[in-house]
Amino acid sequence: MSAQLPPMLPPIGDAEASEAVRAVYDDIRATRGSDVINDFWRVLAHDPALLERTWTTLKATMGPGVLDPLVKELIYIAVSVTNGCTYCINSHTASARAKGMTDEMFMELVGLVGMANETNRLVTALQVPVDKAFLPKTG
Amino acid sequence: MSAQLPPMLPPIGDAEASEAVRAVYDDIRATRGSDVINDFWRVLAHDPALLERTWTTLKATMGPGVLDPLVKELIYIAVSVTNGCTYCINSHTASARAKGMTDEMFMELVGLVGMANETNRLVTALQVPVDKAFLPKTG
Amino acid sequence: MSAQLPPMLPPIGDAEASEAVRAVYDDIRATRGSDVINDFWRVLAHDPALLERTWTTLKATMGPGVLDPLVKELIYIAVSVTNGCTYCINSHTASARAKGMTDEMFMELVGLVGMANETNRLVTALQVPVDKAFLPKTG
Amino acid sequence: MSAQLPPMLPPIGDAEASEAVRAVYDDIRATRGSDVINDFWRVLAHDPALLERTWTTLKATMGPGVLDPLVKELIYIAVSVTNGCTYCINSHTASARAKGMTDEMFMELVGLVGMANETNRLVTALQVPVDKAFLPKTG
Amino acid sequence: MSAQLPPMLPPIGDAEASEAVRAVYDDIRATRGSDVINDFWRVLAHDPALLERTWTTLKATMGPGVLDPLVKELIYIAVSVTNGCTYCINSHTASARAKGMTDEMFMELVGLVGMANETNRLVTALQVPVDKAFLPKTG
Amino acid sequence: MSAQLPPMLPPIGDAEASEAVRAVYDDIRATRGSDVINDFWRVLAHDPALLERTWTTLKATMGPGVLDPLVKELIYIAVSVTNGCTYCINSHTASARAKGMTDEMFMELVGLVGMANETNRLVTALQVPVDKAFLPKTG
Repeated sequence: MSAQLPPMLPPIGDAEASEAVRAVYDDIRATRGSDVINDFWRVLAHDPALLERTWTTLKATMGPGVLDPLVKELIYIAVSVTNGCTYCINSHTASARAKGMTDEMFMELVGLVGMANETNRLVTALQVPVDKAFLPKTG
Repeated sequence: MSAQLPPMLPPIGDAEASEAVRAVYDDIRATRGSDVINDFWRVLAHDPALLERTWTTLKATMGPGVLDPLVKELIYIAVSVTNGCTYCINSHTASARAKGMTDEMFMELVGLVGMANETNRLVTALQVPVDKAFLPKTG
Repeated sequence: MSAQLPPMLPPIGDAEASEAVRAVYDDIRATRGSDVINDFWRVLAHDPALLERTWTTLKATMGPGVLDPLVKELIYIAVSVTNGCTYCINSHTASARAKGMTDEMFMELVGLVGMANETNRLVTALQVPVDKAFLPKTG
Repeated sequence: MSAQLPPMLPPIGDAEASEAVRAVYDDIRATRGSDVINDFWRVLAHDPALLERTWTTLKATMGPGVLDPLVKELIYIAVSVTNGCTYCINSHTASARAKGMTDEMFMELVGLVGMANETNRLVTALQVPVDKAFLPKTG
Repeated sequence: MSAQLPPMLPPIGDAEASEAVRAVYDDIRATRGSDVINDFWRVLAHDPALLERTWTTLKATMGPGVLDPLVKELIYIAVSVTNGCTYCINSHTASARAKGMTDEMFMELVGLVGMANETNRLVTALQVPVDKAFLPKTG
Repeated sequence: MSAQLPPMLPPIGDAEASEAVRAVYDDIRATRGSDVINDFWRVLAHDPALLERTWTTLKATMGPGVLDPLVKELIYIAVSVTNGCTYCINSHTASARAKGMTDEMFMELVGLVGMANETNRLVTALQVPVDKAFLPKTG
């Protein structure tokens, strides 16, 4: 068992939700095909407009596009690890697993994120100028 | 044209390279099927053992595995953007393009990295505890 | 004069803009009461849907609310400095000045951002548990 | 209830405090008009000179100036969220509330910090050069 | 007592370890002259090749060189604090203590890390160009 | 040659310096035994009180203590690299060289900072709980 610190504001349950919040909750449920609304949305609901904007953007970002849905989750994990966001690491790892991420894929991702963070700092420490060959041809 | 700050130590050319450094340069060329050695490796070469370790690890990390080579480049870009590493953003974007990343894929990646950074901070600001359903079953 | 690295994709001028992009450009101009569209939007325009979402959210975020518009710019600068985003530091400092930020206010902000970054690390280094009195009463 | 990890060194109580530490504790109490000394200061007290310097600087930074005291707390929260400092997020949110921050103001701040973090990364990913119009006229 | 969140994958005990993992465990024990294998390695062991690479690199990095072993631990703490990595702060502080770090040295390190983070942000906020005298003579 | 972006406010020369600023400039010169005042201080001088506080704290932090002066510079570089602060990386590398840092020491530092950043992210990705043996005995 683990005891975590409390959220800044309490999660808003279905019964207390305003109409605007309820509409977002409904769309989350419909989009995900699940009855569960995780606490991120329930706390964010204290600002209904922010909730609506964030959900709409996340839905568009994670929805159909040219990148694979599982690939998107892997990228989300990579960013969340680099920022040290515990909630996001746990939630997107759970989502990635639900979309087919195996232990082997997870461990390969972990090694890659570690290595990218290492070489990012090596090159920064050495202050290496960008090679001309790498620069986009837009200058 | 762009003028950049100089590197901390000068890139080591082929002619000046020690045998140990030369061996790594050769392996970079063979692995990549290209004669070009970018300046990151040439500056890192001031510590031949560090050069060798870093190249060996990068080769293993970016080499054959369960994740697609292009997906690995996308993840590398995502981490580099989050860390603000200009060199790495440019070099891995060039690599990703060489492996087939289109403008459309790049822009979708950009939006995703932006969104992940946003929700990472939203959830941190709200101090939302991780939902039990997200926690791994290893506790 | 200063020479900067080129952007990943070229800024999209008015003449080349699609109808969807043009609509956002028009709204930026109308909202800001200025004919200038800065290059962030012109490069982001390579993904018209991302451009539209980002502008809509930024407009809502920086628009009328309970916080003062200048205060919002100061907060934007504080985040951008902490992330080391050169473009954002320059653009939001320019915006803050346009909304009335004096040199004195800027310098007070700078000192505050420096101090917050210092105490953030002091407390992290010392691993001080959060005092019960500070915790929200939502647990 | 929440269980946190222990601090690196134990908080120094009033009874164990040296004269130098006691002087700072007294000034904290007098300045804040409260008898409570939070644990950040009590752990920092293991280095009396560092305690004194940090308190003096924080007092000057958060004291009278051209920015509003509540605005300063909001900026402190914005930096602390961006750095992911749990202690600081909780302590400065408590301070901000004590200075009048409402739930509505807090949620607007949260949305703003999220958005700043998003656009910071978007512009970094796109490597957009700073528009000439934004650059300070000091070059 | 403290309750922490569970790891993403369970630590791999000696009995369950594959031969490759066991070889690394043995080398960790031999190198450190201790029977204890901390959980970082036991979880990393889910990818035996990543475990092997990481241990080999860490051993080389922390092993004999031109910098003092205790100095290396101090630098490790400084980086870990700046990244906000709780596990690393605790593990490397324990290692530093085992190598002779006193409370006084720790507190001096803490103040230094705090100050470096402050001046990093001050100079970034002010966008001060690097003085010519500081630039390496490699350009 | 390299062209950099201009600072937010112009450096304040000796002739334009107020008495308070001049006093700090004099102390910097006396403390460092050099006539040169680098531009960080000259730009910071737009807020004389902030200049004075920052210099006083830096002088105490980098001055005599239990850690070696060169070790302090190495730690400063490690933090600056992790934060990606170009000015600080260049200025503290120059200071470290002036205090005896060799190329070999610099490269060993670079490898160490890279490795610390890598393992920080590996352990964060794996969400490994801190081993009981590492926790300070203050709980």
